[in-house]
Amino acid sequence: MIVKVSPRGSMDQLSQLEVDRVKQSAKSELYQLFRNCSLAVLASGLQGDNAEGLFKQFSNFNINVLRRERGIKIELVNPPEEAFVDGKIIAGIQEHLFAVLRDIVYLSDKYENLRHINLTNSSHVTNVVFDILRNGQVIPFEDPNVVVCWGGHSINADEYQYTREVGYELGLREMNICTGCGPGAMEGPMKGATIGHAKQRIGQARYIGLTEPSIIAAEPPNQIVNELVILPDIEKRLEAFVRLGHGIVIFPGGAGTAEELLYLLGILLNKENEEMPFPLVLTGPKESAEYFMRIDEFIAATLGDEAQSKYEIVIDDPVRVARIMSHGMDVIKDHRKTSGDSYQYNWSLKIEPEFQLPFIPTHEMMGNLNLHYQPNKAELAANLRRAFSGIVAGNVKMETISSVVKEGPFEIKGDPDLMALLDKLLSAFVKQQRMKLPGTEYVPCYKINT
Amino acid sequence: MIVKVSPRGSMDQLSQLEVDRVKQSAKSELYQLFRNCSLAVLASGLQGDNAEGLFKQFSNFNINVLRRERGIKIELVNPPEEAFVDGKIIAGIQEHLFAVLRDIVYLSDKYENLRHINLTNSSHVTNVVFDILRNGQVIPFEDPNVVVCWGGHSINADEYQYTREVGYELGLREMNICTGCGPGAMEGPMKGATIGHAKQRIGQARYIGLTEPSIIAAEPPNQIVNELVILPDIEKRLEAFVRLGHGIVIFPGGAGTAEELLYLLGILLNKENEEMPFPLVLTGPKESAEYFMRIDEFIAATLGDEAQSKYEIVIDDPVRVARIMSHGMDVIKDHRKTSGDSYQYNWSLKIEPEFQLPFIPTHEMMGNLNLHYQPNKAELAANLRRAFSGIVAGNVKMETISSVVKEGPFEIKGDPDLMALLDKLLSAFVKQQRMKLPGTEYVPCYKINT
Amino acid sequence: MIVKVSPRGSMDQLSQLEVDRVKQSAKSELYQLFRNCSLAVLASGLQGDNAEGLFKQFSNFNINVLRRERGIKIELVNPPEEAFVDGKIIAGIQEHLFAVLRDIVYLSDKYENLRHINLTNSSHVTNVVFDILRNGQVIPFEDPNVVVCWGGHSINADEYQYTREVGYELGLREMNICTGCGPGAMEGPMKGATIGHAKQRIGQARYIGLTEPSIIAAEPPNQIVNELVILPDIEKRLEAFVRLGHGIVIFPGGAGTAEELLYLLGILLNKENEEMPFPLVLTGPKESAEYFMRIDEFIAATLGDEAQSKYEIVIDDPVRVARIMSHGMDVIKDHRKTSGDSYQYNWSLKIEPEFQLPFIPTHEMMGNLNLHYQPNKAELAANLRRAFSGIVAGNVKMETISSVVKEGPFEIKGDPDLMALLDKLLSAFVKQQRMKLPGTEYVPCYKINT
Amino acid sequence: MIVKVSPRGSMDQLSQLEVDRVKQSAKSELYQLFRNCSLAVLASGLQGDNAEGLFKQFSNFNINVLRRERGIKIELVNPPEEAFVDGKIIAGIQEHLFAVLRDIVYLSDKYENLRHINLTNSSHVTNVVFDILRNGQVIPFEDPNVVVCWGGHSINADEYQYTREVGYELGLREMNICTGCGPGAMEGPMKGATIGHAKQRIGQARYIGLTEPSIIAAEPPNQIVNELVILPDIEKRLEAFVRLGHGIVIFPGGAGTAEELLYLLGILLNKENEEMPFPLVLTGPKESAEYFMRIDEFIAATLGDEAQSKYEIVIDDPVRVARIMSHGMDVIKDHRKTSGDSYQYNWSLKIEPEFQLPFIPTHEMMGNLNLHYQPNKAELAANLRRAFSGIVAGNVKMETISSVVKEGPFEIKGDPDLMALLDKLLSAFVKQQRMKLPGTEYVPCYKINT
Repeated sequence: MIVKVSPRGSMDQLSQLEVDRVKQSAKSELYQLFRNCSLAVLASGLQGDNAEGLFKQFSNFNINVLRRERGIKIELVNPPEEAFVDGKIIAGIQEHLFAVLRDIVYLSDKYENLRHINLTNSSHVTNVVFDILRNGQVIPFEDPNVVVCWGGHSINADEYQYTREVGYELGLREMNICTGCGPGAMEGPMKGATIGHAKQRIGQARYIGLTEPSIIAAEPPNQIVNELVILPDIEKRLEAFVRLGHGIVIFPGGAGTAEELLYLLGILLNKENEEMPFPLVLTGPKESAEYFMRIDEFIAATLGDEAQSKYEIVIDDPVRVARIMSHGMDVIKDHRKTSGDSYQYNWSLKIEPEFQLPFIPTHEMMGNLNLHYQPNKAELAANLRRAFSGIVAGNVKMETISSVVKEGPFEIKGDPDLMALLDKLLSAFVKQQRMKLPGTEYVPCYKINT
Repeated sequence: MIVKVSPRGSMDQLSQLEVDRVKQSAKSELYQLFRNCSLAVLASGLQGDNAEGLFKQFSNFNINVLRRERGIKIELVNPPEEAFVDGKIIAGIQEHLFAVLRDIVYLSDKYENLRHINLTNSSHVTNVVFDILRNGQVIPFEDPNVVVCWGGHSINADEYQYTREVGYELGLREMNICTGCGPGAMEGPMKGATIGHAKQRIGQARYIGLTEPSIIAAEPPNQIVNELVILPDIEKRLEAFVRLGHGIVIFPGGAGTAEELLYLLGILLNKENEEMPFPLVLTGPKESAEYFMRIDEFIAATLGDEAQSKYEIVIDDPVRVARIMSHGMDVIKDHRKTSGDSYQYNWSLKIEPEFQLPFIPTHEMMGNLNLHYQPNKAELAANLRRAFSGIVAGNVKMETISSVVKEGPFEIKGDPDLMALLDKLLSAFVKQQRMKLPGTEYVPCYKINT
Repeated sequence: MIVKVSPRGSMDQLSQLEVDRVKQSAKSELYQLFRNCSLAVLASGLQGDNAEGLFKQFSNFNINVLRRERGIKIELVNPPEEAFVDGKIIAGIQEHLFAVLRDIVYLSDKYENLRHINLTNSSHVTNVVFDILRNGQVIPFEDPNVVVCWGGHSINADEYQYTREVGYELGLREMNICTGCGPGAMEGPMKGATIGHAKQRIGQARYIGLTEPSIIAAEPPNQIVNELVILPDIEKRLEAFVRLGHGIVIFPGGAGTAEELLYLLGILLNKENEEMPFPLVLTGPKESAEYFMRIDEFIAATLGDEAQSKYEIVIDDPVRVARIMSHGMDVIKDHRKTSGDSYQYNWSLKIEPEFQLPFIPTHEMMGNLNLHYQPNKAELAANLRRAFSGIVAGNVKMETISSVVKEGPFEIKGDPDLMALLDKLLSAFVKQQRMKLPGTEYVPCYKINT
Repeated sequence: MIVKVSPRGSMDQLSQLEVDRVKQSAKSELYQLFRNCSLAVLASGLQGDNAEGLFKQFSNFNINVLRRERGIKIELVNPPEEAFVDGKIIAGIQEHLFAVLRDIVYLSDKYENLRHINLTNSSHVTNVVFDILRNGQVIPFEDPNVVVCWGGHSINADEYQYTREVGYELGLREMNICTGCGPGAMEGPMKGATIGHAKQRIGQARYIGLTEPSIIAAEPPNQIVNELVILPDIEKRLEAFVRLGHGIVIFPGGAGTAEELLYLLGILLNKENEEMPFPLVLTGPKESAEYFMRIDEFIAATLGDEAQSKYEIVIDDPVRVARIMSHGMDVIKDHRKTSGDSYQYNWSLKIEPEFQLPFIPTHEMMGNLNLHYQPNKAELAANLRRAFSGIVAGNVKMETISSVVKEGPFEIKGDPDLMALLDKLLSAFVKQQRMKLPGTEYVPCYKINT
């Protein structure tokens, strides 16, 4: 089956050079990246978080960019049927396809040429993240209103319903939603907000999805997302979340959610961010109270009460979550107005290089993480963040999965008390089926050396 | 509590005379109509289908139209809190308030002056319905795409979920939804379609609600409705449904739904409408199969197989429902193009005066209905329609409820076989709790003399 | 030649009854009105102010309203070629055609039914004018910014250029223009404002044209007019000007311009309007200084210095004119905010019935005008206004022209001093070729009995 | 005087790095470029084509980019008063300021990093021009409709009025205008088109201005231009004209206009462009007939009749000019559809490097131009183009003017016949005051060695 798709949303005009660059060619790494991300987007209607399976199933899928008299078209060869309704591509998917093209072409074009820039320089990284977001047109002129929702892609029906209700209450209060844009807790708040926005007649509601090439296939963007941006790696994606979002709501999740929470706490514990208003709520239905208790204990035991003071746990009260966020928006607006900082991008938030530099979770790196108690809580948070990041990679990123298959699970070591706490938390995630979608038995990609 | 509300959607400018006309005045019938409809709209967040209770609860509610430098404002005294989110009126409700004002002022202004028009003239009635709809701006310039969804306001959770799924599939196929705009089967399809429309990036999706003053309080418009029109009586409202809608989906419901089905079959059985394409589907989840079997039997036994040929029963298959409608739209477009008839308003559909003239369900009228088998199926349908209409009124319309309280239940008589069939059907509705929202025991407002 | 035209701007949907009403029929007065106004609009590209000539030239022109699947179409039989560019109707004219249809159908529909309303009641007249304007959608939600420009349709090249410059400066200051919408001083300010608005990127600039059936053929609306409304008679049209406009600029003109000035002064001299801010400027290029001196003398001698205090004469200074208007807008905004009066329609302006009731300039009425000095200056202004109104009618309105042809010129009598002043002023108009477009010799339709 | 200006049109968000780059700093060449182009835009209301005089007059002008909570602002220190109306910056100028910022920042950012790209490669140059235009958002999705108007900035009143009339007829036919965006023949067609577009209700009409840093001060963009792009040099600007424009109208002008015509003929004479439809009209009022005769003779004598066949001379017939263009658009649409080439950017037009590579008109380069008859007419055209380009630079570009002051006029030599023709043409330009705005005596910057 061959289908031609017209542009929607972004990138209706490419230059000859740009089209040449994404031309199909067995050798081209860029073409592979483009093809795989496009396939992920097309497969968003399929259930499953198994990227490798997806690529196998659609091994005869191809994609080509064509130049036509009215601009460009994308030609799809053997795309997943789920992307179509009665033979017509779903508009949301069509938009996502061109967002992929935009980000892949743009990144390639721009950052190839920026290789001489020292991307270990913290300010440069921050500017690059800004630049990618602006190019994706997610830096509009608006009052603070973006709530980032984090949480697992594999959550149960009660939790899912709860994320919808929170989204609904946020939408009723005219806030926009930003997530990692996969299923579960990344989709529920958007669905809920859609109803809230409809009742409030918000015509230009924003459903921002931030993803990255190595995870997009395992967590394909849901089609409500109307502003999709593909960041190059998890660190830039996390930085995009915290500079773009004005407040953060954390729903139950697994290792990825823990990674996100530790990343954020590590930054908020930075002395330079002490005065920065940043509403942060951990929330779930009654049934999830236990889950958050565990997390809270773990934070208390590792990062201490200052870290605990950075968040509020709200159980089974969507209206309260929405009101905290709504109130937070006013505080942020005042704060930024006073400090002259941008409403759209939190330039002032201090992020240390240890949170910016890509962490490649090899067995060696994972084995060498410094997981010992120490006075600098931010640094401990950084290392714990890396540990969870490695586990996420071992669960869903194809390359890391391969290396775990070859070399066995990561060995994680450190202070025995700390290891015990970590082990306990991870075991709970496994037991609650938060590591992978239900249906397959979870084989841990790690071993805690307690 | 006093709140001032600015215009939204309609009617931002009124003349001095128009403002005077809706000024609060104990004696003014028009003011009472305006106040009550406004209260109904404001109370749409409350659960319940008890209009009288509502009016008692908010007996100290008042409403005033004020003239201001930027146009008019509506002042609400002691409105229901449910209309507000953190002190701010929900935009959907705000829009509905001004739709009420528009229709009340307009009808009063226009039809006062039209009393000399012979409204028993079928063509005049049709023109009046058109005029009300156009004034409410629900006659836009578009290809056929309006699916009317009928069904009960009191349905169970499975049925509700099913109406959402059908709505979702209709929305994915870019169709718009029109309902009687209360809760239950009138709300579910809109919620589902909202998600489908979001995925298809339909910015201007239409959620049309057609209601009438005597029912708006019992079935207040849900807030997704973004085109609300108040027709003067049930007959004009039904005519609006069948001329505005291009296809009709009937979900499970009670007496009101039966009324609607009989009305439509009565019209479609008219010889002049024989060639008119009019997709009509009766559908529900697996659990409702039984329900539709009963209805189908009743139709077969009363109106015969020609009537049966006008609809299709689809069980538990939302995609199929949506495809029937989607295909039907193409057929209608061709048919109207060929005949030169308007896409927006089905002028060609023949409706006999017996379906247009208001039926006032007094005890006498109900007792005199000619419910006997006869060769003219359309006429039998008309009389059966009236019987159900009376029962609906006895269930939810305040005036009729009062007269039933005073004079006892309606006595319905006719051909014994027919009466037995009717009794069986109504008993099933009662047993399935389709007559009123659960929680109160249903006391029938009728007695079938079998 | 037969051309079919699709709707633009207004009235894309008509009911069957409405279409029937404007169906071609030799006997139908409404059809004739519709046909003639439509012809006038189509002929706007032709030079000339001779309505009778126009109707003769296009005696084989016909117009029909057709119902089609996407709404209505207008069919033109033998329309003037000037309405088309390379065979395609000019969009501005297309819009005007449907504005004519809208106003003719609406007025017919509504005011037929309002005949029982006492239209001698001042408040009713004001409400009717409001209603017509609102139906034409010229009552939007905006800050005060409408400048009415009055002046002759027959002005010389210097004066025309000057009206463009004033329009340009008004446009640069983001004000909108409203005129009687014919050529000359009714067109120049719009052309100038178009350039000013383009430089200020005013996308939604308004060029409001107010006309009436009996004058539209002699002064067809120029095509820049994007909000055209046809009022039933000159009195309602003048009321529309002064309630809709926030300030008024008067350029050189003939009898019509004098009529407008006297009308306005008559109203502003009303004690109840004493405090009403109403910026009024008489302006022209250097060459026109003499003209305004004459007018000013005439006002001084007839209405006195209070009347003179109501206007400012500005010679050859477009920037100053625009600044007076711009400043006036701020004053009006404050005044209406304080008084709670509408920004869009000056409800508070007191207009006495003598300025509202249609004046039919028969020979008898003209002969009986009370043109004597008297203490009530407003009443004198009213009668002088009528005298000029009759002369305008005798110059350009077909019916009046016929009766003058038959019965000879109007005889105007009154106080000898006053008659002398009047004669002098009118002679100046004739000499300056302000009565009719140059090219034909002007034969006065009046005789002053000095 | 210090004024802060908010973004309009482009570039409301800059990164910290970008703001730093255009920070005021005596040493920064980029800042100087930004300041001077901004000053030129602000001075567009001043009469004059003397860049040096402008820079002297406003030597105390400064400009700063500020970061604010809602994005960036531009701070102007001592800007020309002509940019403001009653203290408020004209929206068109505001838009142009941010277009300057956009193009300066973008070019700096992007092409700094592209220095390693071989910009002598023809395809790369073409891609760079495309990229600059796309970044300036002048590559929209539309049918062919862009008419480029070339002609002098110094033309007489009759010619100016004629350019307006041509613009009006083009606007009536819904075509958009692109010019070099200074005064005279670059402004007139836009003013005329504005009225034509208003009558046709073209809300999104495009007035594209293409300029370059070294000429913007001498020919500041008129404020009707709503899509302003600053190309780095005259060669890229000319390439932008011929790839973006679909047809070209040449009005009377001086050396710059001759340069443009020779550039275009040189390209159209390329065998590879033989089949390329490219409507080209030379036109002016009756009084300019002589002027075009001269040009035509010169072309005949130098480039021959094939060159003559590429254009049509139309005298005093705006409607005919517009019809040629309108018809040409249809031909181009068909041609591009067939060939699959873009409607927006003429990728297929072959442009040889000799027309793309910047020509720096030093005395040496001008002295060495090969101005001899030769069989390759395209090459002769290229060299003649360079000769005129040098003369333009000597007339209006500051650096070249300085070197002419220092080293005396350029000496131009070549085939004596050719030199005689050239001398005659240039003398005619001088005599007709086409070299500089009237008021100063023209001192030639060249000497023809006949």
